[in-house]
This record gives sequence, C-alpha cells and structure tokens, in this order.
Amino acid sequence: MQPVISFISDFGLDDTWVGVCHARIFSCCPDVRVVDLGHQVPVFDIRAGASMAAAGVHQLPDAIHLVVVDPGVGGGRRDLIVTTRRGTLLVGPDNGVLIPAARRAGGVASVVALNEPAPNAPTFHARDVLAPAAAALACGVRPESLGAAADPDSLAAAPFGEPVREGGYVSGEVLEADRFGSLRFSIPGDDLGALGLDSDRLEIELGHNTLSVPFSATFCEVPIGEPIALVDASGWLTLAVNMGSAIERYGVMPGAGVRVRSTVA
Amino acid sequence: MQPVISFISDFGLDDTWVGVCHARIFSCCPDVRVVDLGHQVPVFDIRAGASMAAAGVHQLPDAIHLVVVDPGVGGGRRDLIVTTRRGTLLVGPDNGVLIPAARRAGGVASVVALNEPAPNAPTFHARDVLAPAAAALACGVRPESLGAAADPDSLAAAPFGEPVREGGYVSGEVLEADRFGSLRFSIPGDDLGALGLDSDRLEIELGHNTLSVPFSATFCEVPIGEPIALVDASGWLTLAVNMGSAIERYGVMPGAGVRVRSTVA
Amino acid sequence: MQPVISFISDFGLDDTWVGVCHARIFSCCPDVRVVDLGHQVPVFDIRAGASMAAAGVHQLPDAIHLVVVDPGVGGGRRDLIVTTRRGTLLVGPDNGVLIPAARRAGGVASVVALNEPAPNAPTFHARDVLAPAAAALACGVRPESLGAAADPDSLAAAPFGEPVREGGYVSGEVLEADRFGSLRFSIPGDDLGALGLDSDRLEIELGHNTLSVPFSATFCEVPIGEPIALVDASGWLTLAVNMGSAIERYGVMPGAGVRVRSTVA
Repeated sequence: MQPVISFISDFGLDDTWVGVCHARIFSCCPDVRVVDLGHQVPVFDIRAGASMAAAGVHQLPDAIHLVVVDPGVGGGRRDLIVTTRRGTLLVGPDNGVLIPAARRAGGVASVVALNEPAPNAPTFHARDVLAPAAAALACGVRPESLGAAADPDSLAAAPFGEPVREGGYVSGEVLEADRFGSLRFSIPGDDLGALGLDSDRLEIELGHNTLSVPFSATFCEVPIGEPIALVDASGWLTLAVNMGSAIERYGVMPGAGVRVRSTVA
Repeated sequence: MQPVISFISDFGLDDTWVGVCHARIFSCCPDVRVVDLGHQVPVFDIRAGASMAAAGVHQLPDAIHLVVVDPGVGGGRRDLIVTTRRGTLLVGPDNGVLIPAARRAGGVASVVALNEPAPNAPTFHARDVLAPAAAALACGVRPESLGAAADPDSLAAAPFGEPVREGGYVSGEVLEADRFGSLRFSIPGDDLGALGLDSDRLEIELGHNTLSVPFSATFCEVPIGEPIALVDASGWLTLAVNMGSAIERYGVMPGAGVRVRSTVA
Repeated sequence: MQPVISFISDFGLDDTWVGVCHARIFSCCPDVRVVDLGHQVPVFDIRAGASMAAAGVHQLPDAIHLVVVDPGVGGGRRDLIVTTRRGTLLVGPDNGVLIPAARRAGGVASVVALNEPAPNAPTFHARDVLAPAAAALACGVRPESLGAAADPDSLAAAPFGEPVREGGYVSGEVLEADRFGSLRFSIPGDDLGALGLDSDRLEIELGHNTLSVPFSATFCEVPIGEPIALVDASGWLTLAVNMGSAIERYGVMPGAGVRVRSTVA
C-alpha cells in the first residue's frame, strides 16, 4: 500500500511554507501520499496542534504523522521521531505536541532525536529536518538511522493531561471548538467505558453551566437547538448543539475545565 | 484517462475532515485524482453548495462530483448517487444540493440510495459512506451495486429553481458573490439563447437598482468601475464591476430576486 | 524526476478556480506534480504575488512557476513564458508579477508571448491559456512552440525595484507581513554580501523607527519580544520579533520604504 504522511501545521495557507514542505517530501520519497489534515492551527497553539494530531492518529492509524507547531524553532529544542506502542510514527518538535497523539496510539515506545543541521545554517526546520525525516520513514528508512535514541522520560510535557477520574466525575479541559461550534473535550471516546462514562446520558459541568444531555451517535437525535454529547470524527468526547453552536451557547474558551459524569435519564 | 473526483464541502480548512476524506478515497481507489473545488461553502448553506456543484459540472463534465453540505447528517435523510442524462455521476445527501448540478448535466436520469451503516454506529457520513461511494464509482463499480434504486421524483427539492421567463423578463435569484465581488445569478449561461437573453445589452433589476449594462465576454470591455454582465467560469450569468465589487456597489445578498431582459443599446 | 509546477494566485480558496486549474493541468500532463504555494494573495495585489513568486523560485529552483495575479485579464495584456538566465520557467501575465522572480533566477533571458484564444471567446485565462502552457512545459514542450518571441525590454515593469545602495544605506520597501507578523523587505538574502549588509548587526529605518538589531539565522537568538533581522525561508531580508509580531510593533504597511545599513555592535 502507498505510504501516507498526514501533515499538520500552524503555517496557515497564506504563505509558501506548506507547498514547499510538500515539494521537499516528494523530492525525498516520490511515492508517498501527503494528506493535509490542517494548517490553520492557531499560531504557536500547541494544545490545538496536539488535539488535531491525536485526531489524525485516531482516523489514520497507519499514516506517518508530521506535526509542525513550533514556537521554539531554532532555539535548541529537539526534533523527534516518536514510535508508539502500536507502531505509529510521529514526527515533530519536542514541545509536547506529539504526546496526546502518542497516548492515542498506545503510548510512547521509543524516541529518536533527529540529526540537526550545522548550528549557524539558517534553517527552516519543517522543510529541512522534519519533512525529510517523515519522507525517509515513508520510504522505509528506520528511525534509528536518522538520529540518536532519546529517553522517553526526557520529552517535554503534553499541553494537556489525560482525563482524571475522581469523586464520581471525570475531569478534563476544552480543547477547541470545531467549525460548527461543537466543543471537544480532552476525553478520548475510546476510554469512555473505562472511565465509567458509557451511559445514555451525561452530566457536564462547563463554566457556569451544568448540563444533562443525552449521549448518542449523531446530532440529529435531539431537536434542533438542543445539546447532545457524542464522540465526533476526531475521537474526542464532544458537546454539540443540533444545527447550532455549543461555543456560542456556553461561552467557554479552549483551556477551560470540564467535569463529566454518567447519569440515569 | 485517470478518473477524477471533484470534492465540495462546507467542512472548511481548519479541521481534519477534508484530509481524512482524501485518505479514505485513496485507500478505496488508489488511482483516482481528487480535485478540491472548494471546502469553504458557508456552514449548512445548501444554496451555495448547489451553486458550486453546478459550476463543477460545467467545468469538469467528466468528473465524479462529491458534494457534502449536509445539515441533516445522521438524521435519516438518504445518501445518493444521481446519474444524469449525460452520464455525469453526482454523490451527496438527499437535500437538494445535487439538483442544480444535475440540471446542468441534462437532468436526473436515475438515482441510487446508498446502503447505510448500522443504525447506531457513530458515523462520519462523508468519510464512511459518501467518499467510499465516490471512490468505488471512480474505480468502475456501477451505482446499482452500491444501493437500491430510488424514484427521481422522491428527491428533496433544489435550493433554487430554474429561471422563469414571464412578461418579457427572466426571473432568478442571486446565488452568491465571488471573491472579486461579482454576483452570480441562477441563470445558466448555456440557456441565455433559449431564454431570449442573447443580446449585447441587458437590463437587470436588482434590489432597488435597475441597470442597463453591456453583456460581453470579459470584464475589460467597460471602463474601470463600470458594471458589465458576463458568463463567468462557473457558467452562471454574472454581474461584475471592472476592477471593483458588484456586491459592494449594489448591496444585495444571496437569495435576493433578480429580473433580466434584453435591451437594445 | 517528476516535473513540478508551483502554482500561485489571488483566487482564494472559496471558489472552484484553483481546483479547475489543477484539473486542466492534469488533463494536459498527467505526470506533473502541482505544488500550491499560495492562493490567498490579496485580490489584484501584484506586489504580493511577485514577492511570493520570487520566494517560490528561491525555494523550488527546478519547478515551473505558474503565477496568476491578473487585474487586467481579458484586457489585451499578454500571457507570457519567461525563461531566466538560469533556465527557470515562469508563466503568467505581462504585468510585472514575474519580474522579481526572474531577477532571483539570474534575470530574463528570453520571453514568449502565448498564443491567445479567439478574441470574443469568453475565456478564463488561468484555466484556458496559462495552466495549459505550464502543463505543456512540464511535459517537455519548448516555449517557442507555444507562442511568438517577445522583446524582454517590452515587458511591464516589476511592482517593486531592486534594492538601491546609496550613501551607506540600502533602500527597499516592505513587501508584506507573514502569518507570524514578520516583515519582509525587497532585499534578497543572496545579495546581502554584495550590498555590504553582511554584518552581525543592522540598523533599520522603518517608518518613524530606527532600530539596531542583531542579524542572525534564527528567531531564538534574541530574548522573547525582541526584534531580530534574518533571511527567512522566502529568501527576503526579514524583520521579526521573537514570539511576537513585527507588523504590530512597528505599524508599517506593505509599500512603506525601508533603509538598512551595517553597524558594528
């Protein structure tokens, strides 16, 4: 099967950066397919990039994931290849942006710190280090050929933690709102059973609101304008409003805390 | 020749959805070429999606057209393959978004309602139903293998009608403004002769304005700042202002009525 | 090696134009790789398009560069293929948008004015003239087969001049701000030595400000919030603020003049 590189960045679509990285990938590995998952991650927003990378791993488990949200570029932070326990390959800077995606794929198994260019060479790391590394992996090069093994415990922390279960509640945070205004929480859909959230109805504490909402598969199981919890395509537990906007309704921002528990209707 | 899928949606470019649909298409049919016609259709705007789909059929008559603007996703509306009288294949939800494109390609010849996944499976229809169907068609699968025949008369209505000729005027509506501010009307350029609009000059009633404008092939046949009617690349009759913006000048919104007749200069 | 067409336009991403040009290129030359460098050039902004085209040549020296920023489309201006002294091929309208890119690739060596369609045919030049020409070049057709030789001295002027060295200063202008707020100047990084700007510290006169900033390879060599001069991925001399925005800090607009000289720290 043709190898796939999924590509996420905060480069936006107004500049040449995304295209130039594509060109670099193709020049290193002509047969790879590059899938742009999103390049409009807010500038320097490691949380949003990490959330999207986890969604990418959820939806494209066999891809190599190239994630470039890198406020510290050029400042000595390492460029990494992370191999997960399920064999997923993640490529990006050592600032935590890869960690939630690694958790989604079984956790960090091993890490390689990529060889860096000469210290005073002006470098566009995405183009000159990270994209070529992803392309090399796509062409079958092994991670350990591209740098030196690094200690998984030495990695920068994730921008948000794993959900915490305490006192009958599961606590997390708001990761982002999607285009339709639905709010994604840092609670993976795959973990709902283990977290005791596998009921038909959830109570959600969000800012000043405490909501009791049905938990279901699709938006349309509540009337128009009503809230509903579901696991959306990203794989995160999500609060939506059918044909409306949860972020407008509840007025919370990314980073806000959220608590969830199962209730009986 | 390599098959082409044209892809339109209201997914925007801030999320993983478009890329994930690309990946799904390639995994089903590796040799297809996916052409992104536009993913920034305003959220849930069936009129804008239908207008763009018709423009896609006009410009890429041999492509398979995948159109996902789907406010009712998951709510029991059908997913369709429409085959037109000219053999064009359209894939999308049964909410009218495909109908103007079907008219542009000779009208609806036959319809297949796609097989749906299990009722309680959380489903991203674009990724899990519509994209695989378009990919299967691109790889040569016949529509009837992918679902059950449906009655063309049972389809949801188009978001806008065909132009109406009455009392010396042709009536339609404003579909949208393009990036340059030009206003597209729901009057196909191919029908201008049949509608009696094939003159060098048109009178256009638009909001509170009645304009008499030249009808020509290009913007530049009027002085800078002057209005002109033309058929733009989308194939719709269009009101432009040379080096200016018709939507700013005339202040109308999509959905506003428009009446047009031929005049003699 | 697979031929690459880099594609720049002011079409935006809300319409079908970019996709339709892709489809046209593939139908003319199936084996080409199209790299979208940027389609959100501000409408009709020849300076911004020219700046991006020069950045494209800098980063993708072996590509064919298709540049469509064309306020005069349909108005009799010529469509061109420019061959540079280094053999780079540029395709676009004769309005100056190709000239800074040509300078970056050694200067204009020869020019072909493309054969035009019939005068009254409604034409989408990007799709019907420029994209097919770029595709033909990608497939090995020679420029002179696609039109008539034109005099390089007859070309429309560039939207900005080459940097001028006078009285110890190098003068240029602000080309644009990138997504991170960094300001690019019309001074090519490759020319810094010849212009006498190859020192560790630069004085920059910009609007009402006179700055003395370090000149270095990366943002991170100054504290957060401090300004720094560097040559960014585009190849232009650039004023950045580490983790901040130079355009917000200094409040200048594209087109503003800038003067630079070397200083000793």
